[in-house]
Amino acid sequence: MDRAAAISELVIANRVVAHLKLVDSFGHVTVRNPENPQRFFMSRARAPRLVTKEDILEFDLDSTPIDLRGCKPYSERFIHGCLYKSRPDVMSICHNHAHELLPLAVTKTVMRPALHTAAVIGREVPVWDIRDQFGDTNMLVTSNEMGNSLAAAVGMGKAALMRGHGCVVVGTTVQDAVFSAFYLRLNAEIMIKAMSTGETITYLSPGEIDRSGELHSQPSAQGRAWEDWCAQAGV
Amino acid sequence: MDRAAAISELVIANRVVAHLKLVDSFGHVTVRNPENPQRFFMSRARAPRLVTKEDILEFDLDSTPIDLRGCKPYSERFIHGCLYKSRPDVMSICHNHAHELLPLAVTKTVMRPALHTAAVIGREVPVWDIRDQFGDTNMLVTSNEMGNSLAAAVGMGKAALMRGHGCVVVGTTVQDAVFSAFYLRLNAEIMIKAMSTGETITYLSPGEIDRSGELHSQPSAQGRAWEDWCAQAGV
Amino acid sequence: MDRAAAISELVIANRVVAHLKLVDSFGHVTVRNPENPQRFFMSRARAPRLVTKEDILEFDLDSTPIDLRGCKPYSERFIHGCLYKSRPDVMSICHNHAHELLPLAVTKTVMRPALHTAAVIGREVPVWDIRDQFGDTNMLVTSNEMGNSLAAAVGMGKAALMRGHGCVVVGTTVQDAVFSAFYLRLNAEIMIKAMSTGETITYLSPGEIDRSGELHSQPSAQGRAWEDWCAQAGV
Amino acid sequence: MDRAAAISELVIANRVVAHLKLVDSFGHVTVRNPENPQRFFMSRARAPRLVTKEDILEFDLDSTPIDLRGCKPYSERFIHGCLYKSRPDVMSICHNHAHELLPLAVTKTVMRPALHTAAVIGREVPVWDIRDQFGDTNMLVTSNEMGNSLAAAVGMGKAALMRGHGCVVVGTTVQDAVFSAFYLRLNAEIMIKAMSTGETITYLSPGEIDRSGELHSQPSAQGRAWEDWCAQAGV
Repeated sequence: MDRAAAISELVIANRVVAHLKLVDSFGHVTVRNPENPQRFFMSRARAPRLVTKEDILEFDLDSTPIDLRGCKPYSERFIHGCLYKSRPDVMSICHNHAHELLPLAVTKTVMRPALHTAAVIGREVPVWDIRDQFGDTNMLVTSNEMGNSLAAAVGMGKAALMRGHGCVVVGTTVQDAVFSAFYLRLNAEIMIKAMSTGETITYLSPGEIDRSGELHSQPSAQGRAWEDWCAQAGV
Repeated sequence: MDRAAAISELVIANRVVAHLKLVDSFGHVTVRNPENPQRFFMSRARAPRLVTKEDILEFDLDSTPIDLRGCKPYSERFIHGCLYKSRPDVMSICHNHAHELLPLAVTKTVMRPALHTAAVIGREVPVWDIRDQFGDTNMLVTSNEMGNSLAAAVGMGKAALMRGHGCVVVGTTVQDAVFSAFYLRLNAEIMIKAMSTGETITYLSPGEIDRSGELHSQPSAQGRAWEDWCAQAGV
Repeated sequence: MDRAAAISELVIANRVVAHLKLVDSFGHVTVRNPENPQRFFMSRARAPRLVTKEDILEFDLDSTPIDLRGCKPYSERFIHGCLYKSRPDVMSICHNHAHELLPLAVTKTVMRPALHTAAVIGREVPVWDIRDQFGDTNMLVTSNEMGNSLAAAVGMGKAALMRGHGCVVVGTTVQDAVFSAFYLRLNAEIMIKAMSTGETITYLSPGEIDRSGELHSQPSAQGRAWEDWCAQAGV
Repeated sequence: MDRAAAISELVIANRVVAHLKLVDSFGHVTVRNPENPQRFFMSRARAPRLVTKEDILEFDLDSTPIDLRGCKPYSERFIHGCLYKSRPDVMSICHNHAHELLPLAVTKTVMRPALHTAAVIGREVPVWDIRDQFGDTNMLVTSNEMGNSLAAAVGMGKAALMRGHGCVVVGTTVQDAVFSAFYLRLNAEIMIKAMSTGETITYLSPGEIDRSGELHSQPSAQGRAWEDWCAQAGV
């Protein structure tokens, strides 16, 4: 994949995450520059639903824009730059506030996969609380110091919840980042509803997580969803 | 902004709140006349989805219509007149019965922001119960006496829940009133679902509310949502 | 209103209740013949979304069809005939299985209005259990004996829940029946969600129910919703 | 019904289950070959929303494809082959992960019909846990050994929940399989919400299940829903 193809796919991904309501007017998805791994692509600051090719900007891994062309960048670009720096295996990132997962992001509940397709999120999703290290803030990740703290919470994992805010999900491809964000949200919904019944949840075992996670990380599985989502989103 | 622009924006806002389902067939959004702060604009009594420029009427701050042109006004216009009178800083008001927040409006639960974007609602949202001062009524705010009571509950805050009825949200602009109403609703949904799990909610700290509230009150944040919502609503 | 106008309004009502998802493929809305109060109009057995003028049949108050024209009638027409017989004030009836209210219809929870617009359902909605009088059945109201039992449960009230099945709502007009069914459902949703939080619900007082119910039974309130719903349903 | 008609109906069924959100990008519906009961039809591996006549493949009851024509088959075709083998009365099968029923599929809750239309699912829906017999797997049913284990859990019943995964529903026709899957999901939703209120659920009695199940298994009932769903799905 070259630079132009990566940008095209990023524009499509913005439409898809908007259509799937993984993002509302906030949240963002990015892709690493396939021609230069020290850089990544991200829209200027606007709602994902409206993003076009003309909105895409390039940043280095300190999240410094290469050429702003007069545009305003997202203030939380540091989430992406820091994760691309700490995780050479990551090619795409989705930061979102999907409404259905937020109830878990405001409690201390540890998220673990209960659904086979959600095995892609790994054995446990940590909750990162910006207050722990930075005290009272406006809750946004607006510096490399903050971004590095969040990246440390993600570690070698797939995702982290951000207390009172949302989540971040990393992927080996754009499709992987979106697929994982989709089933992270569904897993949260299932957990919340199951907890409301008072019944005990049977989570996937570590072995099931590994095996089902590997399966659902393959292009054959994720591509089936991607084809469906692109058709739904009309792209 | 002049009078004509305010009316145009009000018509758009009616479509937006209908599209976002902040209102069903009831509820209303208004704007203060930018050329005469002793007056405000409000549709005649009809569902917000259907409001056009021809439906907009002007009222003074006693909620007396300037010229009804044969139209029937909303019986709850006093909510707006009384708040514009008590709060010179307020330029727009949204009164709604958003279905998702109503479960909180029928209990004694105090709403506080748990989500960063909801920091705009302030530290605590009081519940105003019309029965406390007025006994058994038809639940509507149909006089200046009632409107003043509700305005006193709002005080210098951003919103109040109305027991068994809905809520009122004030804004420094039309976009601010709608944005705040949107995230007030989302905060209610998150609280309700989190409470149903039996887990303890971590609310934003006072410092986080102040800092995140200030950030999300800025036109750069609210404008991003507004652009998205107008595109969705087709206006 | 004459016979033709009543049939036209009934066709519109079928589209509206389908659009509002008050019915899925089952459920029905009917209207009394304004020219002959001993008869009522009801579609042949088909999904409300698809009903046209050609589907409308006429029945007497024993639910005997006047002229089937080769069509299959709904097997539960007795719900309607029996209520039109017992309640001369009733001009329209909606029987539905709205998904959101069903959780209350499978428990012993007594529904009372907690929301001002739901005051139209009256002080308390009884739960009618077909098993009490008829033992094990297929759960449908398929005889005048069963219909009379249900009508007795409704009494002079506005609605009854039907255990394991759905509800029936009566109205003084088609608009009143649909409006009351809409806010009955919303009241159920609010109760269910509020109960899930563990908090105590403040219901409307008897005086509030009377006053708000009277207000929301007026054509000025119901017509506002009707105009909105017809526009949404494209009729 | 001949082979061509069965394939046409299967394509329609794929659109319907996608429209009803019984499936997301995963899940599948199949039909037995009416001309050769030792074979069944199933799409190649793709999202049900996108399935066309050209995607339909034929399999024997060992789930061996007759002619792949270069296509990739679903890896879980064994669910279908094994059930068609164990159940000569079954003509169609729907395997799905409907989001709303998943909270029950991750707990030990036994599903029983609480709603009359859900009587078609039978007296009790067993939960099949792949881990019981096969230990840590990727959770998918990818062999005849696994398929036979699941078929044994279904037995002579109508459905089984699959722990951490979804469900399988069998039918005497395509319409019966989809109808039963639809009301299985609704019954799960109702149970979950009713359980969250803390109130006790009144389930249908065995006699009610038998009588209402028989009634709602008839083409007159299921055809009404099918006509509605086809119209909604635009097929």
